[in-house]
Formats: sequence, structure tokens, C-alpha cells
Amino acid sequence: MSTRYDRTCPVARTLEIIGDRWTILIIRDLLLKGPRKFLDFELSLAGISPNTLSARLKILEEADLIERRFYEQHPPRAEYLLTGKGRELGPVLRALKDWGQKHTR
Amino acid sequence: MSTRYDRTCPVARTLEIIGDRWTILIIRDLLLKGPRKFLDFELSLAGISPNTLSARLKILEEADLIERRFYEQHPPRAEYLLTGKGRELGPVLRALKDWGQKHTR
Repeated sequence: MSTRYDRTCPVARTLEIIGDRWTILIIRDLLLKGPRKFLDFELSLAGISPNTLSARLKILEEADLIERRFYEQHPPRAEYLLTGKGRELGPVLRALKDWGQKHTR
Repeated sequence: MSTRYDRTCPVARTLEIIGDRWTILIIRDLLLKGPRKFLDFELSLAGISPNTLSARLKILEEADLIERRFYEQHPPRAEYLLTGKGRELGPVLRALKDWGQKHTR
């Protein structure tokens, strides 16, 4: 992701990781619904392409906001869940929700 | 902007308006620094193209989050400022800042 803007600003640094609407909606699903499989995200995020979803999950995993856990070995099946660092985005999601409830419909 | 995802979710509806990192940084500047001119944004948001900046400001104006005010008539010179609705995004920005201060550098 682009890092051309000011890295001294903590808002800008946060947006380098989650500054994409799909990424924020992935975190929303994990906060609200707990561990999710790839297919769960595809159903919830209608309109996202599998490639985009893969790319966003990879960014979140590399940034240590989510982890992938295998809940079955044969065949291998994985689900995604938030790390502690990821869960701490709760206040961001709550603020987005509060504003949306008040100002959009 | 895409509206393909679930419009029953207030987070998703908020992101339809501000779900772009430049847009959030424009709001950050207006919250922190008060009324800004086009050139102020260009200097602050290093890397943004004039076309992208124009487009983002237009979206924010149409959504009634910012307004344009002419502070000089001859020649016409405008500046942008937050509306009440825009200022109420303060908690979103604070949450992004708090997370970034704790988890990024």
C-alpha cells in the first residue's frame, strides 16, 4: 500500500493498514461474528472478488491483526480470527457505527 | 462509489462516504487545523493528485460533511470547512489515532 504521506501521523499510519473499506468490513465481521472462513467473508461482503479478499486477508495477517487457524487437517481447512491487536480496533468500528446510525440511512 | 455491500449496516454506510484513506486525511486536516484551501491539502497530503483531491472534496461537499466558502470575490478564492455533521467524525479520527499511537510507528 502507498506510504507516500506523512508517517509521523498515527492516523495515517493506521490507514496504511486498514485504510480500505473492505479491510474495515472484514474486521467488522470478525468483531461481530467471531472466527470466519473465507467463504463466510465472500457471502457477507457481497461484491468482493476472491483475489481482493485474499489480498486483504494477507495484509491483515502480515500486520498481525488477524491469524489463520487450521480447524481441520485432512483436508486442510482454515478460519480467520482477530488477534488482540486486531480486537483493539473495536473503538474505531464503534465510532464508524455511531456516526452511520446518526447520519446515514 | 460502490454501494454493492449491505446497506443495512451503519459501518458500511459510513464507509460509502469516508471509506477512502485520502478522505479521512482531509477530515483529519480540517479537524486539526480548521478551514483549509485546496493548496493546503496538496501540501499536507503529499502524493495526492489534484484530480483525486478535487473528487474527494466534491464527495465530501455533496455528502454535506464539508462546505466551501469564498473568502475573496475578486478573484474568487475559496476555502473548505467542516459542517457539524463532518465535525462529528471526531471520535472516528480519535480512535484511529489512539490505535496508531499504540500499535504503529
